[in-house]
Amino acid sequence: MNQDFDAYLHNHRAEHLDELTTLLRFPSISTLSEHAVDVVRCAEHLAELARTIGFENIQLLQTARHPVLYADWLHAEGKPTVLVYGHYDVQPVDPLHLWETPPFEPTIRDGKIYARGASDDKGQVFMHLKSFEALMKTTGSLPVNVKLCIEGEEEIGSPNLPSVLNDHKDLFAADVLVISDTTILGPNRPSVCYGLRGLAALQVDLYGAKGDLHSGLYGGSIQNPLHAMVELLASLHDKSGVIQVKGFYDDVEAISQEEQDAFAKLAPDDAKLADSLGLPELFGEAGYTTLERQWVRPTLELNGVYGGFQGEGTKTVIPNSAHAKITCRLVPNQDPVDIQRKIQQHLKDNAPLGIRVEVTLQDTGKPYVTPFDHPTIQLASKAYAKAYGTAAAFTRMGGSIPIVEAFAGVLDIPVVLMGFGLDTENFHAPNEHFTLDNFDKGLRALCYYWLGLEEALQSGQAAKSE
Amino acid sequence: MNQDFDAYLHNHRAEHLDELTTLLRFPSISTLSEHAVDVVRCAEHLAELARTIGFENIQLLQTARHPVLYADWLHAEGKPTVLVYGHYDVQPVDPLHLWETPPFEPTIRDGKIYARGASDDKGQVFMHLKSFEALMKTTGSLPVNVKLCIEGEEEIGSPNLPSVLNDHKDLFAADVLVISDTTILGPNRPSVCYGLRGLAALQVDLYGAKGDLHSGLYGGSIQNPLHAMVELLASLHDKSGVIQVKGFYDDVEAISQEEQDAFAKLAPDDAKLADSLGLPELFGEAGYTTLERQWVRPTLELNGVYGGFQGEGTKTVIPNSAHAKITCRLVPNQDPVDIQRKIQQHLKDNAPLGIRVEVTLQDTGKPYVTPFDHPTIQLASKAYAKAYGTAAAFTRMGGSIPIVEAFAGVLDIPVVLMGFGLDTENFHAPNEHFTLDNFDKGLRALCYYWLGLEEALQSGQAAKSE
Repeated sequence: MNQDFDAYLHNHRAEHLDELTTLLRFPSISTLSEHAVDVVRCAEHLAELARTIGFENIQLLQTARHPVLYADWLHAEGKPTVLVYGHYDVQPVDPLHLWETPPFEPTIRDGKIYARGASDDKGQVFMHLKSFEALMKTTGSLPVNVKLCIEGEEEIGSPNLPSVLNDHKDLFAADVLVISDTTILGPNRPSVCYGLRGLAALQVDLYGAKGDLHSGLYGGSIQNPLHAMVELLASLHDKSGVIQVKGFYDDVEAISQEEQDAFAKLAPDDAKLADSLGLPELFGEAGYTTLERQWVRPTLELNGVYGGFQGEGTKTVIPNSAHAKITCRLVPNQDPVDIQRKIQQHLKDNAPLGIRVEVTLQDTGKPYVTPFDHPTIQLASKAYAKAYGTAAAFTRMGGSIPIVEAFAGVLDIPVVLMGFGLDTENFHAPNEHFTLDNFDKGLRALCYYWLGLEEALQSGQAAKSE
Repeated sequence: MNQDFDAYLHNHRAEHLDELTTLLRFPSISTLSEHAVDVVRCAEHLAELARTIGFENIQLLQTARHPVLYADWLHAEGKPTVLVYGHYDVQPVDPLHLWETPPFEPTIRDGKIYARGASDDKGQVFMHLKSFEALMKTTGSLPVNVKLCIEGEEEIGSPNLPSVLNDHKDLFAADVLVISDTTILGPNRPSVCYGLRGLAALQVDLYGAKGDLHSGLYGGSIQNPLHAMVELLASLHDKSGVIQVKGFYDDVEAISQEEQDAFAKLAPDDAKLADSLGLPELFGEAGYTTLERQWVRPTLELNGVYGGFQGEGTKTVIPNSAHAKITCRLVPNQDPVDIQRKIQQHLKDNAPLGIRVEVTLQDTGKPYVTPFDHPTIQLASKAYAKAYGTAAAFTRMGGSIPIVEAFAGVLDIPVVLMGFGLDTENFHAPNEHFTLDNFDKGLRALCYYWLGLEEALQSGQAAKSE
């Protein structure tokens, strides 16, 4: 096996970090329409990076909102084809004042690169490109055929990717899908993720009087939309954290004893975790461990609640509206649309008097689990082990990559989640960063993966035909 | 009795409305520090208006924040002295997009002048000045001695006025205090207000992790400050609107049968009121009528609740904090500081697990009631009747003028609340306005009041000595 890539990566590290810095400067926030131009510019920049490596057939597939970058290199005749998925869009950056350095001015300190998207997911997308570059520069070709699918709507629930995939099934056809948008267990504790939670999002808007009213003149005689909102939202959980929406847990798959035991071995120290997060204690659904709550139990979280006066001092007002944003994390076999409807029904059934309730159903993503003994998953474990010098664990993850389930549905190929993030890297929060040790080792793990894929798939087929 | 003032007011109406427009242009928002300069400029402008009318000894009494305007005219030897209180500061103007015309660009349409402060309270302060001007111009003097006390901190709870009053007891000494910062019952339904609710304000801040966290990775395993907030705030009321804070109602004075009967005669049609406000129905503490809920029952209102993402779309975040602003309206004999402490205790006692609770005690104002058979109150009823051509009712009011109680405490003089607003005039809300019919009739009612005051006080003393 050719390992010249190692020296190549070593010799070009400074140059690669400069290029990563350039990529992280694009404020490609997909949810905010004022950044639509930045999102496109970021896609165009990635396309140019792919072209210089040797990718061909480069296309920005247009959607109703942000484009999908497609590119391929298909000269490994008779070898497997790998499809690489990632996303170049990022989350909003508020509250801005909490960033130690500006979110779109990447800064390296203490072996970490700080910027929005550093870890989720531009840094990891960039590693894929550079792993291919390293093999191409050192061997003149790639050991497998490669297709890239890098989208710009992952942080808003990938609304258009399913139709892009459906419209271009042949273009995206491949033997395996590899995604790097997840975390490993900890520094030098690599892990292969074989399951993700799904997503169901809703917005709740309560409306009272035609306009804001004086709380002295009207206070006590009309329903305050904020009172109605806290009463309504409080009804969604009991005090021990159990979700009270009728039927919410109906389709939840029970956890096997085998999984429970495996999780117990990986279990974090709750007190240490709480301390590292700055919390007095952890809290969650009664009867489950922290890892179970994060990986295999569904959630209903308020992501935003707002209404009325938020300025300095006091304002004696009864606001005429109140708003809340909700997302659920779902587990097999919950159906996101079914869950949205059950929550909508709960909100209507529990609506307080004297206000009007509006519920808007938003993003959805199905949960996904893949067998951990699949050869593409086992190869990932070996690739990590070579690069990190330590065995990789098999984990599940609390987050959602809705598109994983969409890919699995449309393309019917195994999905390998080979992430390099750490859960301390502040994804979606101020001071997001990416650890350069994982950047370095991850680049090598990816190279080992591409180099081993043909053999792994052959042995998998051999095992099947035995 | 000299009634030339009527012709004078008639002939100078256009000029007076122009001057009012100028006064309303000052964005004198007392709670926002970026408007501190505008607040001072507004005070200086009012001082100049007073000077041109003939007021003397004009002073801007400095405080820790916004100045108090003092001015007097003391040449009615042997006659009573009236102290006029008002405020030139205004509430914030958000949400700005709901204003049909900008809040600080006064616009007259349909017999109303639209601007922040038009009714609460610059318009009514301006009427006092113009009533004195009318008498001065038509008779060469005033029928009573007059002192003005116009402050700039009413909308933030008048934190500095009590110490200003205490420091200048002699300067402010008077026989009666007249305030126009309340409403009448409706168009051409004048009323004298003899009671106000008090105020107690608090801010609640909940803090979770050190920073915002990803709702996928951590969702379900830590307390979400927004969940804790809605649970905590929902515990403040039961579903029928009764406040659940221990001891909250302990000191509430029972309503007399006489008052209940009087209120019943004034009772609004609940369905019509709901409809006029754009509400499906009214809502309030079980067992009380709408007027009782507004005038003689205490309240606990959320004026603002906020935390997490408020932008377009979704953000899968667990915010690290959540915030709420609370104000209570209090009735005799509740003590604002006692109520603040009881709420603080409730919030501590009911704090959910896994977060830190901070409670900040803010503004307070004691409730105030004055006997409605006092001669200064009865005179107000007669002055309204003359100007409006219809008898005035005696009412109480749901709002708070904390300073009323402070004045009564420091100066020990009767307080007359002679307002000219309408409760449909959007105080504290977008599209605040003042009805010009009440501007015109109110100016005359004030003139009648000043002209009748000496006789009323003499008859009151006669009655006392009988």
